[in-house]
Amino acid sequence: MKSSHRKSRSVYLYEEVYNYIQTRMERGEWKKGDKLPSIRELSSILQVHRLTVFKAYQQLKIDKKVTVKDKSGYYILDHSPLITLQTDDHIQNAFLHKSTLSEIHQIPVKFQFSQALIDPNLLPNRYFSEYVKKVFDLYPKVLGTYSTVQGDEELRETLANYFRKKHNLHVEPEELLITSGSQQAINLIAHSLIKPRDTVLMERPTYSAAIDIFRGQGANILTVDIYQNGYNMDIVEQLMKKHKPRLFYLNPTFHNPTGYTVPTEQRKQLVELAEKYKCLLVEDDPFHDIYFDKAPPAPLFTYDSSGYVMYISSYSKYVAPGLRIGVVASRQPLMKILLTAKSLADNGTPLLNQKMFLHYFTSERMQQHLEKLRIALQIRKEIMEDALSQSELKWVSPNGGLNLWVKLPSNIDSMALLSKCVEQSVSFVPGHICDSRNQLHSWIRLSYSFASEKDLKEGIEKLCYCLRTL
Amino acid sequence: MKSSHRKSRSVYLYEEVYNYIQTRMERGEWKKGDKLPSIRELSSILQVHRLTVFKAYQQLKIDKKVTVKDKSGYYILDHSPLITLQTDDHIQNAFLHKSTLSEIHQIPVKFQFSQALIDPNLLPNRYFSEYVKKVFDLYPKVLGTYSTVQGDEELRETLANYFRKKHNLHVEPEELLITSGSQQAINLIAHSLIKPRDTVLMERPTYSAAIDIFRGQGANILTVDIYQNGYNMDIVEQLMKKHKPRLFYLNPTFHNPTGYTVPTEQRKQLVELAEKYKCLLVEDDPFHDIYFDKAPPAPLFTYDSSGYVMYISSYSKYVAPGLRIGVVASRQPLMKILLTAKSLADNGTPLLNQKMFLHYFTSERMQQHLEKLRIALQIRKEIMEDALSQSELKWVSPNGGLNLWVKLPSNIDSMALLSKCVEQSVSFVPGHICDSRNQLHSWIRLSYSFASEKDLKEGIEKLCYCLRTL
Repeated sequence: MKSSHRKSRSVYLYEEVYNYIQTRMERGEWKKGDKLPSIRELSSILQVHRLTVFKAYQQLKIDKKVTVKDKSGYYILDHSPLITLQTDDHIQNAFLHKSTLSEIHQIPVKFQFSQALIDPNLLPNRYFSEYVKKVFDLYPKVLGTYSTVQGDEELRETLANYFRKKHNLHVEPEELLITSGSQQAINLIAHSLIKPRDTVLMERPTYSAAIDIFRGQGANILTVDIYQNGYNMDIVEQLMKKHKPRLFYLNPTFHNPTGYTVPTEQRKQLVELAEKYKCLLVEDDPFHDIYFDKAPPAPLFTYDSSGYVMYISSYSKYVAPGLRIGVVASRQPLMKILLTAKSLADNGTPLLNQKMFLHYFTSERMQQHLEKLRIALQIRKEIMEDALSQSELKWVSPNGGLNLWVKLPSNIDSMALLSKCVEQSVSFVPGHICDSRNQLHSWIRLSYSFASEKDLKEGIEKLCYCLRTL
Repeated sequence: MKSSHRKSRSVYLYEEVYNYIQTRMERGEWKKGDKLPSIRELSSILQVHRLTVFKAYQQLKIDKKVTVKDKSGYYILDHSPLITLQTDDHIQNAFLHKSTLSEIHQIPVKFQFSQALIDPNLLPNRYFSEYVKKVFDLYPKVLGTYSTVQGDEELRETLANYFRKKHNLHVEPEELLITSGSQQAINLIAHSLIKPRDTVLMERPTYSAAIDIFRGQGANILTVDIYQNGYNMDIVEQLMKKHKPRLFYLNPTFHNPTGYTVPTEQRKQLVELAEKYKCLLVEDDPFHDIYFDKAPPAPLFTYDSSGYVMYISSYSKYVAPGLRIGVVASRQPLMKILLTAKSLADNGTPLLNQKMFLHYFTSERMQQHLEKLRIALQIRKEIMEDALSQSELKWVSPNGGLNLWVKLPSNIDSMALLSKCVEQSVSFVPGHICDSRNQLHSWIRLSYSFASEKDLKEGIEKLCYCLRTL
């Protein structure tokens, strides 16, 4: 046993005692003015060391939740029963669940560079609508019928064939789970595989909502920096060896937010490391088909022979965002665990959405749409880059995906810039919310996929103007 | 501080130590044949009492995970790293998540009395399909557009008006969250409000999947028996007073599985108790409109003036099951917490499904459909009751809902009957999975809503035959 266990356990216990007290305060069991049990008393009740209770009491004091009266003990200063909580801060403290990205998306602005979504105008809406109406005739009872928990068999067979054809990847329909978008896939994986204090590796930066999800499960997050040419593999191995992470959540292809792609050689190594150190790789791959130059390397999942990779794919992002169809590929027995989570989460994705997705996904028009979409997105990227070139901002031009990852001059804080920009009706994602360490304050993510060509130009000009005023 | 704290905390600590060891075994950190740290050593590392470690080691011995060698200590007998888990049992032990009901539903039978779903043939599929196609013309970009996290505003306004008109219930669109079915609503509530070892009240019997959800969150479940005339309110108050439950999950109208309805007087009392003891009432109300005689009492939610009731409604069950639309009504600040959970769970229910639901829900045809559906379900109920009357089974004829709650002769075990029945291609829900205490072995739930009239008769005859052979 190593001494690191001691440390982590001790931190945990003191927090547990803190939470124990706070919970009772929140619920009004222990009220303002009440005296806390003595340290000796509580340490005996909770069967923990007195020092642990002492540390918890000290922290409560620092947080102004209790006060010390000389020689007579600790008294409760404040209590905030759940039901009367008024401010966001309180709620977040009480539950530790938050969704930072979603808060940023809710800022109402005209020049929306924070949403990594496809502009609905780039989708063949009219054609698509007419086309999918046929689904009602093909499956007359589709509106009255539940899907199975795992997802429509016809759709899973189609996707299994598609994986085989596209990546020469052999996956059975039973190894696929249909989800309501890739967000749900990440959430199901976190809920079913992560227990509090499990260690999780995440790229730095990474998808902000994934940080919130894993943190909400109580995971201990360690970061792996991502560079233009991938990871420092020695560091990845050291982290896996030393910390035995439960899983590594990664987005190796046109990575969000940087746009970087992890090279083939590292993909193979990662799968070997995963097996060696029993660390699952959760490969989130929503941008595989959104390339501008040449197709990216094959997914890590194709190199996996022993079930250490779960592969999340979400064609719906560019095929039909409104349908919210995602898919997770996983070998047994992990699929069984995901199925249970899915059955408790929503009992299965609506059948209608699956059938409509299937119908359009297999149409000829879909491939044509995809080719056009790539060109349209590349044009928007170039418009954004042109508009940015007047500034002193720096970025690596991505070969695919939906975002630019932009370095601000180091004296400029992204939040200061964001509040300036919001005044001009421009929004973006500040870098620190993509970093589980809450750093990267001089980076921002600009999505070029959602705003129109005109708005891209105008919005970036406004952003550059804000920069100059800072 | 009461002594009950001591007990629950001590139980918890020993389980924590057990889990600590088991996790390390699962991950292969501690392998078969390895010697465990001495009790003294581990108690120092984890800062817990030696007796706690001793209890954990004893339990590991009972579970055949370690063996004791005289004078030399505890040795690991077996280790089951996650990835090589083979059997269901192992997985369930490792994750404590399960979905019992979903396992029963997966039994392939002809006479399906386990699904409390509406037979798709009772829905106006053709009309509905034609009707909702208009949605594509009304909202041409619906397939390319994401919903907000909270749900389509037009739908929330319509539902708020409907609540007002129907129950004289004043609820703002901002107090409604659209979910993907009521199952998701329960899951979001559990994930955002329940922490491990929180106490939750549930009816006995109750909806099986709700037990799995709250148990999966680590809740300590206490039961409230439900009778034909409601609850024993003294017991409800005692439980709230003594155990300070976080919430009471209840289904007071045509209760699943019993069909009972809690009377108005008790509804008012419950809301008062909830406020007095700061115990949220989570009112699950999917069967409100499925009545045979007269409309049931108003929801508890209508009596709540201080935010202690969350109301889950799911018209989609009988309007359009395939769309999977549910709704939760909740006052602030709890709505804010649910929104965060929803944003992390799936970023919002698909817009298409919401618009289709809205469109049909507000149509005249919907009300006509509902009246016809009530009659059709009542006829099916009576067919099932007629077929059952030849047996010695006993039940209280329900005034609404989709199920009969049937008492077997006390010498007959529901699981024995179920295995006999499955041989005859008949399935039902055994009572014990609706009971968080895992008792009620001589009760079964028979749903009359899914099988056709012919199958109802034939299937119940087979069930009665199986009964006689036991």
